[in-house]
Amino acid sequence: MMSVHDLVTPALIVDAGALEHNLATMAAALPGARLRPHVKAHKCTALARQQAAHGHRTFCCATVREMVGMANAGLGDDLLLANETLDARRLAPLAARISVAVDSEATIEAAAAAGGAVKEVLIDVNVGLPRCGCESGQAGRLADLARRRGLGVRGVMGYEGHAVGMDDRAVREQLCAQAMELLTAAHRDVGGDVISAGGTGTYDINTWANEIQAGSYALMDTAYGKLGLPFVQALWVWSTVISVSPAYAVADCGLKSLGMDHGNPTVEHGSVWFCSDEHTTFGPETPLQVGARVRVVPAHIDPTIAYHERTHVVSGDRVVETWPIDLRGW
Amino acid sequence: MMSVHDLVTPALIVDAGALEHNLATMAAALPGARLRPHVKAHKCTALARQQAAHGHRTFCCATVREMVGMANAGLGDDLLLANETLDARRLAPLAARISVAVDSEATIEAAAAAGGAVKEVLIDVNVGLPRCGCESGQAGRLADLARRRGLGVRGVMGYEGHAVGMDDRAVREQLCAQAMELLTAAHRDVGGDVISAGGTGTYDINTWANEIQAGSYALMDTAYGKLGLPFVQALWVWSTVISVSPAYAVADCGLKSLGMDHGNPTVEHGSVWFCSDEHTTFGPETPLQVGARVRVVPAHIDPTIAYHERTHVVSGDRVVETWPIDLRGW
Repeated sequence: MMSVHDLVTPALIVDAGALEHNLATMAAALPGARLRPHVKAHKCTALARQQAAHGHRTFCCATVREMVGMANAGLGDDLLLANETLDARRLAPLAARISVAVDSEATIEAAAAAGGAVKEVLIDVNVGLPRCGCESGQAGRLADLARRRGLGVRGVMGYEGHAVGMDDRAVREQLCAQAMELLTAAHRDVGGDVISAGGTGTYDINTWANEIQAGSYALMDTAYGKLGLPFVQALWVWSTVISVSPAYAVADCGLKSLGMDHGNPTVEHGSVWFCSDEHTTFGPETPLQVGARVRVVPAHIDPTIAYHERTHVVSGDRVVETWPIDLRGW
Repeated sequence: MMSVHDLVTPALIVDAGALEHNLATMAAALPGARLRPHVKAHKCTALARQQAAHGHRTFCCATVREMVGMANAGLGDDLLLANETLDARRLAPLAARISVAVDSEATIEAAAAAGGAVKEVLIDVNVGLPRCGCESGQAGRLADLARRRGLGVRGVMGYEGHAVGMDDRAVREQLCAQAMELLTAAHRDVGGDVISAGGTGTYDINTWANEIQAGSYALMDTAYGKLGLPFVQALWVWSTVISVSPAYAVADCGLKSLGMDHGNPTVEHGSVWFCSDEHTTFGPETPLQVGARVRVVPAHIDPTIAYHERTHVVSGDRVVETWPIDLRGW
């Protein structure tokens, strides 16, 4: 049995017990199809299989590549591309129930022209985050257009991404309520069974949606760690100290193994000074030796995982499984 | 012949003419072994082969994986691991001339214990960037130790990483001179033929070093683009506009296709609002249609390229080659 101390570093690590705690906690709160796990957070079909074992058979994806990989892994009961694409024909060979988000005539046309690959859509509504999604008042018109083009319209989707990361729960609640007012108004015009929204930061706040698109809850990061959620940190980058000086130490992980858009990572028993391509310079609480191993926890999980070919699942110091991050790329 | 308009996006693009300009400009300024191109910037043996065709047969790497990949690609005439490692035994099966940087007894011991994989070292000296490297005054002692352990000592290395990115050339000159004072003092104690230092921002300033470790010059980014160097932007992320609103448009590249530590990317004919995992929201100068393609230029090249499996080399709209980014991972 391999020990974590035998791994080449930097190495992406998942704590088996913490992952199980997170999956079980979420499955109790949002059982079955009440959660539509977002695979963009982990890009790993082996981890999606764990989510399926906890009762979730519906998934959402951010890219065509994720959709194809999930279907090919046998996880295609109900796959939603929760993003706009003009490349819907790449979904054609899949043995899966495929739905895609649409927010314009052009994306509806791409879905309709995909040779039968896409039979169903959700109307994506802008609920306050300036990104994809039509205006709430346009959703009914787009639904009519989609139906005229032969597509089934399952309902609406709207991601309150401007709310999910707010530290103050009252702020998350207020922003979520305003966002869902727009989404439920759109749903009255669109019809269909599905109101899909939410994320890890609003999983127990967003009661308007009938399915929640959370992803980060499974592994967590330091940004979501500030929100007082019942999910625990289950992922870190395992690194080796390769150089020490009186004031600082240098670990062998950096900008190519850590998503940096939310800021610096956190090092256990130390404070980070800065990251370079393959280094993290930090001030340790107590002197470290060259060769010491340290846990580095990323500020943002999604772009961290996308840098790694695989993750090792550990129980204590034992590596119990190694999972490919097989949904990377586009 | 494939057109760039046929590519799945986001796609990493290299402009063949701009790359050739950069390689030729650098080869004229620093011919042959005066430049030791740093492959960490591009992680691509096909691009390294272009650098070799311009006369550079010595390379440096930041990871063991890069060293192994370069040797296996037949580019192992003189490979320097310009970084500390405790994992030198992974270099063992290589048919290549291998040198590694060392800055401590532990890293010297790792090199000496690598079963003959490492025959030569450079003493890595801290010249002002708080990262790896011994104090200048300790370099001679470490060189003696390395020789006693049976290793050849080729000279010294010291990266003025705190200087290379400064916008003001006079500041770069001053910081570089101070840094090289430390390195040349160390070299007097260490001996050997090699004084290895420098980067793209000091390639024509650092006249103390006899080899320059530049990497970014080949493809460039917006951070180096501010320095008034004779190298031109040769790389971008080709993206599709997937959603438009009256005030903004959304391109299908984001935090998983762009290194973000130097800040937001730049979009041609527009200004970036923010990036999400798979989106860049930006304000276009003139209205764009869904389906339009845009060039997105990263602020920092190295962690951008590390997200991509391949890059397409284009001449105008034609894709003339596709190169794997084959040195990713560790």
